[in-house]
Amino acid sequence: MMTFTELLKKRRAIRDFQEKDVSPDVIKEILKESCLAPSASNGQPCQFIVINNREMMKKLSDESKKNLLQDFAENKGSLNPNYVDMLKNESFNVYYNAPCLIYVIGSKSVRSLDVDSSLAVSYIMFGATERGLGTCWIHLGSHIRDQKLKAELGIPDDCRIVAPIIIGYPKEIPAASERHAPQILKIVG
Amino acid sequence: MMTFTELLKKRRAIRDFQEKDVSPDVIKEILKESCLAPSASNGQPCQFIVINNREMMKKLSDESKKNLLQDFAENKGSLNPNYVDMLKNESFNVYYNAPCLIYVIGSKSVRSLDVDSSLAVSYIMFGATERGLGTCWIHLGSHIRDQKLKAELGIPDDCRIVAPIIIGYPKEIPAASERHAPQILKIVG
Repeated sequence: MMTFTELLKKRRAIRDFQEKDVSPDVIKEILKESCLAPSASNGQPCQFIVINNREMMKKLSDESKKNLLQDFAENKGSLNPNYVDMLKNESFNVYYNAPCLIYVIGSKSVRSLDVDSSLAVSYIMFGATERGLGTCWIHLGSHIRDQKLKAELGIPDDCRIVAPIIIGYPKEIPAASERHAPQILKIVG
Repeated sequence: MMTFTELLKKRRAIRDFQEKDVSPDVIKEILKESCLAPSASNGQPCQFIVINNREMMKKLSDESKKNLLQDFAENKGSLNPNYVDMLKNESFNVYYNAPCLIYVIGSKSVRSLDVDSSLAVSYIMFGATERGLGTCWIHLGSHIRDQKLKAELGIPDDCRIVAPIIIGYPKEIPAASERHAPQILKIVG
């Protein structure tokens, strides 16, 4: 069992994974813990789709890349132009060949959905770290529109994907990317 | 030092505090740790205002209540009508008489601000729990518009308050409010 200090040190964005699969039971434990996250008025709006299948993840990566590039070509969306070449590379998988992917989804009608989901995601990240797993929030992997794919995943029509989280056993735990000191603008004493 | 399991158990929404003040040094430690939270493209957009002064907190509570009620009267905003009577009660302090308040703020131009801030807030919540402190995200306390008050706090014009977090030593740690089981809609194996 890790201390909070260890969790802070070991919770890194992981994009390079061992081949080792992740047991669905471990994922279920982590998702159960994430239900302890706070949510606006205790609304608990998060729902989860677990994709523990590399073939499906490749399909979803291709779908998300296609939609991002299409939006970019039509001047829609907010894709950073630096990502275009990477997304055009057919061998690039937005989920970094992780063994497992969790979509955190929720009803489009919930105003606090981004906030509630993000708090739950932090629980998922720490819960994964506690179990020797690594995670990364892959915003580039959230653009799934194909109705057949969505039906196959069981994503209800009124829901949107807030957070695609890849999860697996890290090859290594990299050092933290550079952080600045906390920007405390004022302390009113 | 707590284990993650203990942190999960003790991180509760706290709205009832001991009189004891919170040291600014402890707040600084907690905010420093929160900089380790992930953010979109490592943008680290969060800035902080610490209000360690009950008189100022009362002023801010009154200001937020006034604006919420005014918006409600004009059919703007999204106030739950159940809160109207509570907000009309002059003795009700939206910050629950906590000894300290942190505003997590950031530039309105950052698209991922809600998500980035929420992830940082979860670090603040766990860091506070680790130190025997309790927190609560007070959405009702985020409606500060008075230019003089904003200047006094040093909130830049291009910034918005995402998360008002009250913080103090809990009188007790209540049981978790009811949680449902994780809503796992599908596991694609």
